[in-house]
Amino acid sequence: MATLKVPSQLPSPTEDSEQLRKAFQGWGTNEGLIISILAHRNGAQRKLIREAYAATYGEDLLKDLDKELSSDFERAVLLWTLDPAERDAFLANEATKKMTSNNWVILEIATTRSSIDLFKAKQAYQGRFKRSLEEDVAYHTTGDVRKLLVPLVSTFRYEGDEVNMTLAKSEAKLLHKKIAEKAYNDDDLIRILATRSKAQLGATLNQYNKEFGNAINKDLKTDPKDEYLKLLRVAIKCLTYPEKYFSKVLRLAINKMGTDEWDLTRVVTTRAEFNLQQISEEYQRRNSIPLDCAIANDTSGDYKSFLLALAGHDH
Amino acid sequence: MATLKVPSQLPSPTEDSEQLRKAFQGWGTNEGLIISILAHRNGAQRKLIREAYAATYGEDLLKDLDKELSSDFERAVLLWTLDPAERDAFLANEATKKMTSNNWVILEIATTRSSIDLFKAKQAYQGRFKRSLEEDVAYHTTGDVRKLLVPLVSTFRYEGDEVNMTLAKSEAKLLHKKIAEKAYNDDDLIRILATRSKAQLGATLNQYNKEFGNAINKDLKTDPKDEYLKLLRVAIKCLTYPEKYFSKVLRLAINKMGTDEWDLTRVVTTRAEFNLQQISEEYQRRNSIPLDCAIANDTSGDYKSFLLALAGHDH
Repeated sequence: MATLKVPSQLPSPTEDSEQLRKAFQGWGTNEGLIISILAHRNGAQRKLIREAYAATYGEDLLKDLDKELSSDFERAVLLWTLDPAERDAFLANEATKKMTSNNWVILEIATTRSSIDLFKAKQAYQGRFKRSLEEDVAYHTTGDVRKLLVPLVSTFRYEGDEVNMTLAKSEAKLLHKKIAEKAYNDDDLIRILATRSKAQLGATLNQYNKEFGNAINKDLKTDPKDEYLKLLRVAIKCLTYPEKYFSKVLRLAINKMGTDEWDLTRVVTTRAEFNLQQISEEYQRRNSIPLDCAIANDTSGDYKSFLLALAGHDH
Repeated sequence: MATLKVPSQLPSPTEDSEQLRKAFQGWGTNEGLIISILAHRNGAQRKLIREAYAATYGEDLLKDLDKELSSDFERAVLLWTLDPAERDAFLANEATKKMTSNNWVILEIATTRSSIDLFKAKQAYQGRFKRSLEEDVAYHTTGDVRKLLVPLVSTFRYEGDEVNMTLAKSEAKLLHKKIAEKAYNDDDLIRILATRSKAQLGATLNQYNKEFGNAINKDLKTDPKDEYLKLLRVAIKCLTYPEKYFSKVLRLAINKMGTDEWDLTRVVTTRAEFNLQQISEEYQRRNSIPLDCAIANDTSGDYKSFLLALAGHDH
């Protein structure tokens, strides 16, 4: 469930874009006005506002936001204003670049989006960067990390609920055998993670747990510092229990000495329209503090107001 | 260019489906009537006929065709009547099954379709088989063949014309190095084939030829019987010069002792709406006989009439 709150009575996209234009004019920027509009419009509505803005002023709303805003608040507003496919394309591209390289982000996008949303992100990626996401990920990674990431990014996963229990049993055995042999980069292990539907994978991993007495991620923790094993565990968590994964990313981002705004902004802006509600519940269950309070304690100013608005708590 | 000929004045889909129903009725089937309709309607039109047929008679046109027709003619009409995405899904599924396993067909579909057509075939595959094409290909192959096929099937390739010549030069060198080392299953070699756009790959392979004096496929012919090397060469041909590939498949299918109807039917039905014209030209250039004459010499009856109609030569 989304946390985004859209008023039942909406101004027209042209009215919204006029208000935004007003917020940019005069001495100083009216950040409150920007938040009150953009943080309460869904993807389709933001798109219409951008179109109306371009039609009326002959300029790109994103560029004007970029000029008017700064630092964490700027990044949050810009990411949010993009539509989900463009945003994922932007984040994934950033994550393949040397200076901002981040395999977790690629993994997160590849495994927690629906198949069609991942596909749309790949289309947006090609439209914007004139290359495929697959080729950039493959080119910028090596070895086992590449062996895991490229298929996860490439696959168009089936999303039906059907489960083949015979297959789940045989693949649970296969996974256990490979892990017992420490063959963590085994072709079949990666094949199962990269190609099976989330429902089928869930059944296989339940079976693993039941038959071998341990959650698979426990068995994959033999060397907690190994980067590839970490990615493998993250992939499994994202594929089977994404709310738990996101709630942990948030906890780590917030509890750090110096908040990790990069992660905090990414999770809130990418999830507010999808499942930030479930992530918040998971967060509260684990940390005994509501997510919005944790965010409020750790951020300030317009950035704080904006994130809280996206999290559904700005009143 | 397509060879399919659609009359400028068309009966309505309902009229077409009435005529088809008539062709099935009475003593014997009117194959000529079936050919005169179905072999002259494009994918969108065939879809409307199937819908009109189902609406009027409460039955599936494909099932009725299956009842009325037989052998090679039946397979050709059924394959043709499917729309391109459904047809590719059907062919790819057949090719992953034990009894009809065929890695060439999977490779052909993965590499000669446009990116969006391959994507639609994958959607159709999931709709029909409740699994992903990726998981079935990965599950039914092993070793190097899997290492090559799965990324080719999975990738969503960029289709723009942009070429990065610096990259083409460095990747041509890389390919040459790996081939010189006989590292034919090298990760980077497969990455380049599976992820680069066809334009970029073309530039890289031209550069390979120019700098190292041999076409890459010549250098990959060190062991002409090796199945993996064969697949690698086929992949390269399909990605860079599909007409040449298809024309060779046709030549081999036709020149065999006993025509290979399986291949002949597949190429004609899958290409008639796309590029059978260029394939025919390539065929004539190489074999000094027009493709339709070669088909006419080697086939007979309704099957012959149907293929010739699809090839644009039934008058």
